[in-house]
Amino acid sequence: MTAMGIVTADISVTLDGYGAGPNQSLKAPFGDLDEGRLHSWMFDHAEESAAEIAAITEASAYIMGRNMFSPGRGDWDLTWKGWWGEDPPYHASVFVLTHHEREPLPMQGGTTFNFVTDGIASALDDARVAAGLGNVAIAGGATTINQYLGAGLIDELRLHVVPFVAGAVGGSRIFDGVPPIGFDVVAARSTPHVTHLTYRQSGRGR
Amino acid sequence: MTAMGIVTADISVTLDGYGAGPNQSLKAPFGDLDEGRLHSWMFDHAEESAAEIAAITEASAYIMGRNMFSPGRGDWDLTWKGWWGEDPPYHASVFVLTHHEREPLPMQGGTTFNFVTDGIASALDDARVAAGLGNVAIAGGATTINQYLGAGLIDELRLHVVPFVAGAVGGSRIFDGVPPIGFDVVAARSTPHVTHLTYRQSGRGR
Repeated sequence: MTAMGIVTADISVTLDGYGAGPNQSLKAPFGDLDEGRLHSWMFDHAEESAAEIAAITEASAYIMGRNMFSPGRGDWDLTWKGWWGEDPPYHASVFVLTHHEREPLPMQGGTTFNFVTDGIASALDDARVAAGLGNVAIAGGATTINQYLGAGLIDELRLHVVPFVAGAVGGSRIFDGVPPIGFDVVAARSTPHVTHLTYRQSGRGR
Repeated sequence: MTAMGIVTADISVTLDGYGAGPNQSLKAPFGDLDEGRLHSWMFDHAEESAAEIAAITEASAYIMGRNMFSPGRGDWDLTWKGWWGEDPPYHASVFVLTHHEREPLPMQGGTTFNFVTDGIASALDDARVAAGLGNVAIAGGATTINQYLGAGLIDELRLHVVPFVAGAVGGSRIFDGVPPIGFDVVAARSTPHVTHLTYRQSGRGR
């Protein structure tokens, strides 16, 4: 048996499982009701969750949805280089799921954005090759993680559960429509602002 | 300010927030896929969660939905005395939400089942009187807890999250349709079989 990496996914969710609000906004995904709540554990209380934040960018390759890479509206802008400036925090190959062809985009610090137009399985094949023996991380957003969960392709799911119920305000739930999945609890830790829960899909050893 | 108890609720939920499966069955709420999984932490691994199990029956009065008291189908059976035998574990007044009038039913050990036909707010008023300075617990099931959450009436929510995603199999979600709610994290602890998360509705002191 050859050693190989696993597929991980980190995502912030509300207590009722929404990984995105109805607004495509990092700052106020659920409107003014809840400004910044989904991600404030990372932005405003980073010291409380330093280990979990560090783990998000420890993979050897990444996959992300188009909306995580670029603004969701308007034309596909070939001059757009992502939200992270000239030196993105990934320092590895990042595969962006899109319907638009684009040449690979090398950035400073070892990050290269690659654009994959033939679906999630193909993107994972590419990312595994790029990762070698390391892990592949599904970086988000909620819809992309939902697709990979639905296909049974996530080995380790790291939920960062914020103590807020979106309820009737709604948004995108990461588990909607997926087949039933059994997990094992790997770790659970709470700060005043977030509960970090790590699950391994049952039967997937490290 | 007068000291008074709080309103608590304990419920087992899947990782995607289902407090009941499509089957009204304690043993296999999500079908054979998942036999016993929602409650096996209590039935099969009680020693791992002894403190959390004990806390479930520490309130001074209880409220439960009709389906938690009696079989969901068929006529209202006036000889039915609940699922718990002659000496139920509550040892206090229990208010059963129902559309059917019935005289109070005293049991051994101090439990009395009372039948409330005029809604959740009225049942809570009755339970607060019965509890005195003690707490009132919303005992379940999922639909009843959803109603009390929707009315903003639960101070402390104790979720027992089992590491299983029901996904497309569905069931009843405890947060569906409720207004947005902010909570504070009070406690988080995990065993291999369940994660115990205690939340206090923000602004509700002890």
